[in-house]
Amino acid sequence: MLEQLKREVYEANMLLPKYGLVTFTWGNVSGIDRESGLFVIKPSGVDYDKLTWEDMVVLDLDGNQVEGTMRPSSDTPTHLELYRNFPDMGGIVHTHSPWATSWAQAGRGIPCYGTTHADYMYGEIPCVRNLTKEEIEEAYEKNTGVLIAEHFKDKEYMAMPAVLCKNHGPFTWGKDAHEAVHNAVVLEEVAKMAARCEMINPEVQPAPQELQDKHYYRKHGAGAYYGQK
Amino acid sequence: MLEQLKREVYEANMLLPKYGLVTFTWGNVSGIDRESGLFVIKPSGVDYDKLTWEDMVVLDLDGNQVEGTMRPSSDTPTHLELYRNFPDMGGIVHTHSPWATSWAQAGRGIPCYGTTHADYMYGEIPCVRNLTKEEIEEAYEKNTGVLIAEHFKDKEYMAMPAVLCKNHGPFTWGKDAHEAVHNAVVLEEVAKMAARCEMINPEVQPAPQELQDKHYYRKHGAGAYYGQK
Amino acid sequence: MLEQLKREVYEANMLLPKYGLVTFTWGNVSGIDRESGLFVIKPSGVDYDKLTWEDMVVLDLDGNQVEGTMRPSSDTPTHLELYRNFPDMGGIVHTHSPWATSWAQAGRGIPCYGTTHADYMYGEIPCVRNLTKEEIEEAYEKNTGVLIAEHFKDKEYMAMPAVLCKNHGPFTWGKDAHEAVHNAVVLEEVAKMAARCEMINPEVQPAPQELQDKHYYRKHGAGAYYGQK
Amino acid sequence: MLEQLKREVYEANMLLPKYGLVTFTWGNVSGIDRESGLFVIKPSGVDYDKLTWEDMVVLDLDGNQVEGTMRPSSDTPTHLELYRNFPDMGGIVHTHSPWATSWAQAGRGIPCYGTTHADYMYGEIPCVRNLTKEEIEEAYEKNTGVLIAEHFKDKEYMAMPAVLCKNHGPFTWGKDAHEAVHNAVVLEEVAKMAARCEMINPEVQPAPQELQDKHYYRKHGAGAYYGQK
Repeated sequence: MLEQLKREVYEANMLLPKYGLVTFTWGNVSGIDRESGLFVIKPSGVDYDKLTWEDMVVLDLDGNQVEGTMRPSSDTPTHLELYRNFPDMGGIVHTHSPWATSWAQAGRGIPCYGTTHADYMYGEIPCVRNLTKEEIEEAYEKNTGVLIAEHFKDKEYMAMPAVLCKNHGPFTWGKDAHEAVHNAVVLEEVAKMAARCEMINPEVQPAPQELQDKHYYRKHGAGAYYGQK
Repeated sequence: MLEQLKREVYEANMLLPKYGLVTFTWGNVSGIDRESGLFVIKPSGVDYDKLTWEDMVVLDLDGNQVEGTMRPSSDTPTHLELYRNFPDMGGIVHTHSPWATSWAQAGRGIPCYGTTHADYMYGEIPCVRNLTKEEIEEAYEKNTGVLIAEHFKDKEYMAMPAVLCKNHGPFTWGKDAHEAVHNAVVLEEVAKMAARCEMINPEVQPAPQELQDKHYYRKHGAGAYYGQK
Repeated sequence: MLEQLKREVYEANMLLPKYGLVTFTWGNVSGIDRESGLFVIKPSGVDYDKLTWEDMVVLDLDGNQVEGTMRPSSDTPTHLELYRNFPDMGGIVHTHSPWATSWAQAGRGIPCYGTTHADYMYGEIPCVRNLTKEEIEEAYEKNTGVLIAEHFKDKEYMAMPAVLCKNHGPFTWGKDAHEAVHNAVVLEEVAKMAARCEMINPEVQPAPQELQDKHYYRKHGAGAYYGQK
Repeated sequence: MLEQLKREVYEANMLLPKYGLVTFTWGNVSGIDRESGLFVIKPSGVDYDKLTWEDMVVLDLDGNQVEGTMRPSSDTPTHLELYRNFPDMGGIVHTHSPWATSWAQAGRGIPCYGTTHADYMYGEIPCVRNLTKEEIEEAYEKNTGVLIAEHFKDKEYMAMPAVLCKNHGPFTWGKDAHEAVHNAVVLEEVAKMAARCEMINPEVQPAPQELQDKHYYRKHGAGAYYGQK
């Protein structure tokens, strides 16, 4: 069942240690098959060394586990909430990648200081607030998804495929699991350069809007001309 | 004698270079067999490249060397003091891992700025004071252990399995040698992100208590639901 | 056609990931054959893993593609403009290498703080201004080259083989593609040490002029005595 | 002639890239045979990839090249001056290792903030002044050695086997080439942690003298008890 998707999600999970985005089991990737309404996610707390594609867990959009003997990632309710709200999301990633997590811990969004950022993400990468005590107690992981969904409601969420959760860490997404990991790598690189850039010039301002536009639309939309046709 | 424990402690020692926690011989791991009251520790100043499991030194809790031809780690009296005071400690690690040591040199405890920290360690990671000149002269390594023991007396030391010794470096522990190394890796990652987080936002405050609680108890105690059963 | 140059430019491109200067496809190298007036450049958006020397694209100095089925790098008009203005440039590199890009995002030139810098680059590495909205809309990549050409007009551009484009990233050059990559590595190392140096001493001043001169001319010009004859 | 020493110096040179202390050819190691009064040094500007032990150059203490077809390191007169002044030096290293060079560029000595430093180097690692214009013009590399020799005159130079040259980089030494490289690694690690430590606590003070003494003498002199007998 969904063997190809399980293989894709497994491969995407294995990119996390390859790109230095995870220590131990601190990350998870999921991917969804929109036709069947089923999504596939990493099992909870399993070492990347020991992971196989058959270990991937399959769930439906009501959160019922429909395949797999292992428990899914503890962050599954966050992924679920995002898939329910955002039909264009095909893959979702959560990590504790060090630079993005440092910004999340600092409680700050990441301003767009340059074209590396603008090539992939349009505008400031948002940092959403802490959940309240009540929201945490009621349903921590689900309400993390609800909070992200509130933020992106009526926004072009595929043009800003990343969010920081305050005192926690980042989520990224894409049209599939692979692109979601790609965006997690971009986020970490952008987070690193933004921090260093502020160290080099504490008065630094975001890049001019016209430069951000140029780079974003050079790669996205009808007028894109980057890469091969 | 204690072959399995010696192998485990050897394997745990070899994780230190694997995770980038040691330069040269700047670290040591021990593990204890509570039944026999014997503990096993790395020999002093031996290169990790040349270390074998048979080199591990066995001591009793009076500090008598009961096996091994090499001298034990110069930090052995610190390990001994901790094992004598804290019955749940099954393994202990000392390193000069760079970020944790930078905090120790700075003389500051590491505030809990996020869930990566809260997942493993409950509250601020303490930094204990310098030993006095008298304490150093009397018994430096033993008194390092005495000072740590004083700090954790009547505290839940397994919920805070790490300490920084001012101007020196960290010790971590766990239920066995492997878990103690795991906590040393966590500590280094947390120390790195806390320093960068303060660089990004000098006014940063610790994570809300309810978020710290949620993450700690998601992984520990009766209500834990992270990982596989 | 130009097989040797294509192989050289391919090899030079492959040095970018080797030296940690690129993530994904964020960089490109070109090299020129001054006799035929043809230059060779990486195709746009192709992964380094999949690149072969036959993929290299050949263009003339009017920007006509004379060989290759793939689209050339989107930055080709910048390379073209530089080759047209500066006859001694034999190779050009563009990357988003993290430290150099952090300075570019910060909008600052890199002062010459030491001999590592002075060994290869004479004086402060310049950071050129943002293009205006009009310049971006008219011909972004070409005008990036025009702006760099304006800056270096009447300057000894081979003694300062690097420039930062504000909010974007660096370009470097050399007598051939290999040397241009070498200078990209030097730039990244120099950018890293300059940022850390300011962190260690916020009041730091550039190295004395006589020391800069000594190191630069120890390696360049008639009086050079570094290396083998 | 001196085959064993050439092999040792070659091996020591090859440790520089292994430990991440050099980019390209930015470093050199020498070793001396005090009986014959001959020393061996890396040839100038040769890639580490291509270096062989037979390439090592042999010189006497008057600076005459007595073996080897290649030119010796351009820093040879500095090494020579040090060997002439300090009879206990058996090996010398020069690098542009990034953290130590950042301190040198910042023009600051490295305070002793902790036991990692005190284990190997007694007190603050000095940063010597810039040479004057006259000293540079007269004999730059030799006068670098003269300046270092002046600083360490009447000091215990084997208890502080490292120096920073302002706006340039570090030299380290030891009883042989291998120990000199070991000290270059220690210096880089100590330089990194000192910079980060000041970032974490800008008011940080050096470690208490009694702690520095304890760690230094735990490893050095008649009362040493670290390592195996």
